[in-house]
Amino acid sequence: MRTLTVDLGDRSYPIHIGGGLMQQGDLLRPLLRGRQVCIVSNETVAPLYLERLRAALPAEASVLDVILPDGEQYKNLQQLNTLFDALLEARHNRTTTLIALGGGVVGDMTGFGAACYQRGVDFIQVPTTLLAQVDSSVGGKTGVNHPLGKNMIGAFHQPRCVLIDTDVLDTLPSREFSAGLAEVIKYGLICNEPFYRWLQQNLDGLVARDKVLLAEAIYRSCEDKARVVAADEREGGLRAILNLGHTFGHAIETAQGYGQWLHGEAVAVGMLMAADLSARLGWLAQSDVAELRELLGRAGLPVSRPADMTVEQFLQLMAVDKKVLDGQLRLVLLKALGEAVVTSDFPLPVLEACIAEAA
Amino acid sequence: MRTLTVDLGDRSYPIHIGGGLMQQGDLLRPLLRGRQVCIVSNETVAPLYLERLRAALPAEASVLDVILPDGEQYKNLQQLNTLFDALLEARHNRTTTLIALGGGVVGDMTGFGAACYQRGVDFIQVPTTLLAQVDSSVGGKTGVNHPLGKNMIGAFHQPRCVLIDTDVLDTLPSREFSAGLAEVIKYGLICNEPFYRWLQQNLDGLVARDKVLLAEAIYRSCEDKARVVAADEREGGLRAILNLGHTFGHAIETAQGYGQWLHGEAVAVGMLMAADLSARLGWLAQSDVAELRELLGRAGLPVSRPADMTVEQFLQLMAVDKKVLDGQLRLVLLKALGEAVVTSDFPLPVLEACIAEAA
Repeated sequence: MRTLTVDLGDRSYPIHIGGGLMQQGDLLRPLLRGRQVCIVSNETVAPLYLERLRAALPAEASVLDVILPDGEQYKNLQQLNTLFDALLEARHNRTTTLIALGGGVVGDMTGFGAACYQRGVDFIQVPTTLLAQVDSSVGGKTGVNHPLGKNMIGAFHQPRCVLIDTDVLDTLPSREFSAGLAEVIKYGLICNEPFYRWLQQNLDGLVARDKVLLAEAIYRSCEDKARVVAADEREGGLRAILNLGHTFGHAIETAQGYGQWLHGEAVAVGMLMAADLSARLGWLAQSDVAELRELLGRAGLPVSRPADMTVEQFLQLMAVDKKVLDGQLRLVLLKALGEAVVTSDFPLPVLEACIAEAA
Repeated sequence: MRTLTVDLGDRSYPIHIGGGLMQQGDLLRPLLRGRQVCIVSNETVAPLYLERLRAALPAEASVLDVILPDGEQYKNLQQLNTLFDALLEARHNRTTTLIALGGGVVGDMTGFGAACYQRGVDFIQVPTTLLAQVDSSVGGKTGVNHPLGKNMIGAFHQPRCVLIDTDVLDTLPSREFSAGLAEVIKYGLICNEPFYRWLQQNLDGLVARDKVLLAEAIYRSCEDKARVVAADEREGGLRAILNLGHTFGHAIETAQGYGQWLHGEAVAVGMLMAADLSARLGWLAQSDVAELRELLGRAGLPVSRPADMTVEQFLQLMAVDKKVLDGQLRLVLLKALGEAVVTSDFPLPVLEACIAEAA
């Protein structure tokens, strides 16, 4: 087991990474403030891992399960309310601990539920997808989608702990696995060129799910994420670089209907579009863009945006992004490999050409 | 104009109290981070004051109005979503400022909306009921009700400023005015015996809406509230005393259906029940309870609980209170006039007798 710390003063917490961690009750037990525990999972993950996690909880714990439907299209206020119904019916109080057992959707909803239930209770992340392990479970961004925009309703609410059991990746479908690799590649692009080069060398081993390589990739991703979050918890500045490709990607997810494209797939195409725009601005070489396209392809990720979306539709959906300030669209772009910036310093026609040609 | 400060480090903010403050644009203008402003009000208050507030905003502000239906029964997630719809349709970004123009329901919902919209934006309280002016607008408790419990879904999110324009009390219906007096009397009971004695002397003048007396009562109430909130923002301990009468009161509100009893009315009866229980425990004199009953009656408040509620129903609804810890019901009781405690140190049969005889 390796452990990292997200350094946020009195809201600091550990990220434990290793095989078989879900069975280790000693990691969970000291974190429970009261006897009440609510495991939130989904219909896909619960049959695989719910009993394993439950067995690791103290015998005296009073455990409630809430099983949500699986998919980004269910990440909304209405589903969140079913969690509140269950907690209130079981009379969970302020000392309850919510445990998110699932991917990014379960983690985001559980975290937001924990942020709002009785004005805030504890929660623990037990991410079961690669994407959640390297990205969404760390950093305290929680929330739900709105028909008019992704993650528009939410809160910053840090977990008490992130427990990354790498064994669960054995059962992850390959499409989901690839989606996770998109966020891994993101860290190399935005802030860690050596890691990007390492990924270029080791991607085939990662795709083959080599345990040693996977643990290393997860550790290095979480290390980058923890550093950025510690420097800028509430996204006043630096943290926005973690959204490389996300403004393009969210437009794709919103236009296609939540759940059609996986988040990581949309981010992959979005990163390629951001790299392409960066190259058009003279910051990256065209060969960097070509290499990224090749890397994403090897990872099993899409490299073209949906052909049925118009440039106009992209621009409209991107205009509701949370990074928009006083009507000005801002994007995360790359000044170089491993060096992201947030900028509105690009000509609109160049952005339009970039979107048009990404199909 | 008199000004108090709620001292919370970098989340500190002023409470301005005086006549005609709503027209003073110079109080609002420095607080707006961006050009976007969203005034949230209700169908009763908007026709009276929306234009007045709007006129005080800078000419260059882009102002959106969201008018909610009036009443506690609309303080729910579904109505909150209409606020999110409006903000997203108008493309409000993270620099928007929400302004709550209304009573406690509008303030609580606007504050919770501000806490969650894009994971947190600024908001300002412009309370238009006495209850909101002396209590709910100060301290950052925000939220909505759930069919199974009042204020069960919410957040701590402090406003940037509380602007108390005492002129608006001229149009407040007398039932609402009385409800506000319940919370004023509360401060005397929990932490300020001199103020309680002052209220006994001056209540008739307050009921006659004497402007000087009202401004004094509001100032002293806010002073007490600000002090308690600064000492315990997130209700780890002391702040719970502000809930004197609320556990009984919430049970009444939930049982009768939100909106049937006004919050302040339910709190009035709840305070009397708490005082009665305190007397049964030997902490207060029976004459104190009789004096409180007389004071509440003079304020136009109810002094008996709904006769159609059973003791069993009370106990069941009180068991979901946020102060419950590991199944143990805790109540705010009075060790003496002006001295509240949070305790579970009372025999259940005494509580049952107290509930039974309060009808």
